[in-house]
Amino acid sequence: MRAIDIIARKRDGEALTREEINWFIDAYTRGSLPDYQASALLMAIFLRGMTREETVNLTVAMAQSGDVLDLSDIIPYSVDKHSSGGVGDKTTLVVLPLVASCGVPVAKMSGRGLGFSGGTIDKLESISGYRVNLTNEEFRQLVRENGIVLTGQSADLAPADGKLYALRDVTATVPCLPLIASSIMSKKIAAGANGIVLDVKVGCGAFMTNLDDARALAQIMVEIGVDAGRDMIAVLSDMNQPLGCAVGNALEMAEAIECLHGDGPEDFREHCLQVAGYMLRLAGQGERWMDAGEVRAYLEQQLDNREGLKVLRKMVVGQGGDARQVDDPSLLPQARIVHAFTAARSGFVQQVAADLIGEASFDLGAGREKKGDPVDLAVGLKVHKKVGDRIEAGQTLVTVYANDEKKVPGCLSRLEEAIEVGDQIVDPLPLFYDTLYG
Amino acid sequence: MRAIDIIARKRDGEALTREEINWFIDAYTRGSLPDYQASALLMAIFLRGMTREETVNLTVAMAQSGDVLDLSDIIPYSVDKHSSGGVGDKTTLVVLPLVASCGVPVAKMSGRGLGFSGGTIDKLESISGYRVNLTNEEFRQLVRENGIVLTGQSADLAPADGKLYALRDVTATVPCLPLIASSIMSKKIAAGANGIVLDVKVGCGAFMTNLDDARALAQIMVEIGVDAGRDMIAVLSDMNQPLGCAVGNALEMAEAIECLHGDGPEDFREHCLQVAGYMLRLAGQGERWMDAGEVRAYLEQQLDNREGLKVLRKMVVGQGGDARQVDDPSLLPQARIVHAFTAARSGFVQQVAADLIGEASFDLGAGREKKGDPVDLAVGLKVHKKVGDRIEAGQTLVTVYANDEKKVPGCLSRLEEAIEVGDQIVDPLPLFYDTLYG
Repeated sequence: MRAIDIIARKRDGEALTREEINWFIDAYTRGSLPDYQASALLMAIFLRGMTREETVNLTVAMAQSGDVLDLSDIIPYSVDKHSSGGVGDKTTLVVLPLVASCGVPVAKMSGRGLGFSGGTIDKLESISGYRVNLTNEEFRQLVRENGIVLTGQSADLAPADGKLYALRDVTATVPCLPLIASSIMSKKIAAGANGIVLDVKVGCGAFMTNLDDARALAQIMVEIGVDAGRDMIAVLSDMNQPLGCAVGNALEMAEAIECLHGDGPEDFREHCLQVAGYMLRLAGQGERWMDAGEVRAYLEQQLDNREGLKVLRKMVVGQGGDARQVDDPSLLPQARIVHAFTAARSGFVQQVAADLIGEASFDLGAGREKKGDPVDLAVGLKVHKKVGDRIEAGQTLVTVYANDEKKVPGCLSRLEEAIEVGDQIVDPLPLFYDTLYG
Repeated sequence: MRAIDIIARKRDGEALTREEINWFIDAYTRGSLPDYQASALLMAIFLRGMTREETVNLTVAMAQSGDVLDLSDIIPYSVDKHSSGGVGDKTTLVVLPLVASCGVPVAKMSGRGLGFSGGTIDKLESISGYRVNLTNEEFRQLVRENGIVLTGQSADLAPADGKLYALRDVTATVPCLPLIASSIMSKKIAAGANGIVLDVKVGCGAFMTNLDDARALAQIMVEIGVDAGRDMIAVLSDMNQPLGCAVGNALEMAEAIECLHGDGPEDFREHCLQVAGYMLRLAGQGERWMDAGEVRAYLEQQLDNREGLKVLRKMVVGQGGDARQVDDPSLLPQARIVHAFTAARSGFVQQVAADLIGEASFDLGAGREKKGDPVDLAVGLKVHKKVGDRIEAGQTLVTVYANDEKKVPGCLSRLEEAIEVGDQIVDPLPLFYDTLYG
């Protein structure tokens, strides 16, 4: 096979065979195919598209380009979740221990953040000593002993995706559905999941800003998963305003702990209950061990009884973290400067633009511009109001947590722009738009 | 400016500005922009196209990426010709001295061959000692003293085109009209021509196999030339069968000399008279110093009086070549083996497929597969019959000139395939299909 023939076929709008896709991905991963041929193919895929079959084949080829995790000897059915990324989305930190507390073992690899949406791994690192680089043996041992492990992505998980993503990033070929879908799904499949709950965010603070695009992405990912033999559920959830209140690494860790106490923001609790419910549903696949109502009641009870919290504590101890910070979140990294951003007028909250809130937090140092940049774990925001809330002039809308006085004014002017208050009564935003089943 | 924004704009079907194109070409030529970004842009151009304005801007940017020849202090009006390449196309070797013999100075850079269509420079090197690498000063001096110079392309003529062409070759982005047209025209413009005659070949032995594609290419090139301030004429000429009889380097040199004696194949003589006529017409632009009939008669006379031949001799001497080989072409490299390929039956020649004839000559060693490969100057073919000719069984159709006995059978079986004889009376092929004026 020759790379140029494969490029030419895709250029002419033909569908590539599984053999062609495997050959290309294998050659590119081994380094025997240069970047300039891969980028020509990526642009041809961008402009010509890929069939469902091609997309599945690409996903599987990327998944098999490195290690494929097999936990079947430890976990009979491995359930995973994935969020397409949003502002204040700390769901994994709650649902993983919550699901594990229901007797369903979970072994998850998460990513670091890039841009204004922080990564689960960064949030976990708010806890001193918490290790995110485990050996394979440590990873397996923790699943076996604790029924829970939450770590960073191993370097050799879908290396083809890592290489291709880096190339897409510099060749204007990122916003392409089959490429986005296969990138996400290749890592999930390589991580050994049998069932996957996809949380596809929609709105100004998400990768997909409108419902149609988000639905199309969710649909393709569900199809890929099904064709690759996985059980799939995808939810379309709102990201026009932040999820919960906390935005920033240690602040989000603290809010997750709050939620595992049975407290915390109502929208975030509800979101976690839904996602965890779908994960349990997948894990019970075949048996359907409870109906939806029972699952819901059971999960609420696990939150309110702090059973999930106990599992989080066990997970933190297992990975070398300081459990006292779980017991007393005031021991998590704290910002030096706390500043209240107050309402200039009374009225109804018309908008809490998630993207601008994310940028305001980013401005304080909570995010990273490029891979490897350090993040300030302590800084961030607590957004106290949601769209539709009635507020009074002078009320605190957002609490700003900063370490650098100079960064505060920029953050405040972003907040001015992000939050709109008006006289019109507006409905609250929905939490979820739809659910897709594979 | 950022490369990724330019790629994204073209990806989305927008027209690039002159500033964007200049920036991209400049950065790529300097090596500050990686191949993988250039190849993504090339694929986007392939699939999204370019407007006339973009194509002109790309051409000019590539022309200005290196040296731009300025002969205006020596030649008041510089006229050039370009052939898109064909089998047996030795036209430059005749028309250049012929036009110079009419008092119009010519200074031309030609290329080497790749694949089955040989390059003018390879044919010239049949003459011992002929130097194709001249310094700038030598080049200018020869134009000034002899009114003619014919050399290889300087390395720094449109280097952006050289780099982009090499990249297109391995990324399946060669067959794209705006890219083909700008590649050709950038070199012509950098070589300082005021007027350009384009000879766009059409047929199975040409880059463009059908008339519509060839016309579209010719049209774009004429438009580029006009927009860049050049006088343009393009002819669409047949390349379904070889031009003239000789195919192969020294054989074509000898046939060119024959033609400059007023002899040689009728079709080739006619082709040269037409192209030379258009060159004179351009050189007389503004004054129109003769009408077409007078030009034609004058050129015929220059051929028959061997005035063009004298100029060729002067050119060869000027560039260090052995003039005795011009005086006596039997001194040119000769093949050891001469073999007659004869007609198996009587009838009418239905086809003399130029591509297969080219490959048969290539098989003998007359061409090169990749840049830098050596060529055998002596080997090749003389094709004695044209489409429409009546032939008798046993008559010699082709004379094969080989240096390696082992290569002959393969060559003969190609010839079997190339030449079709049948009972049906067929019309001769036209020499020209159309002429476009800029």
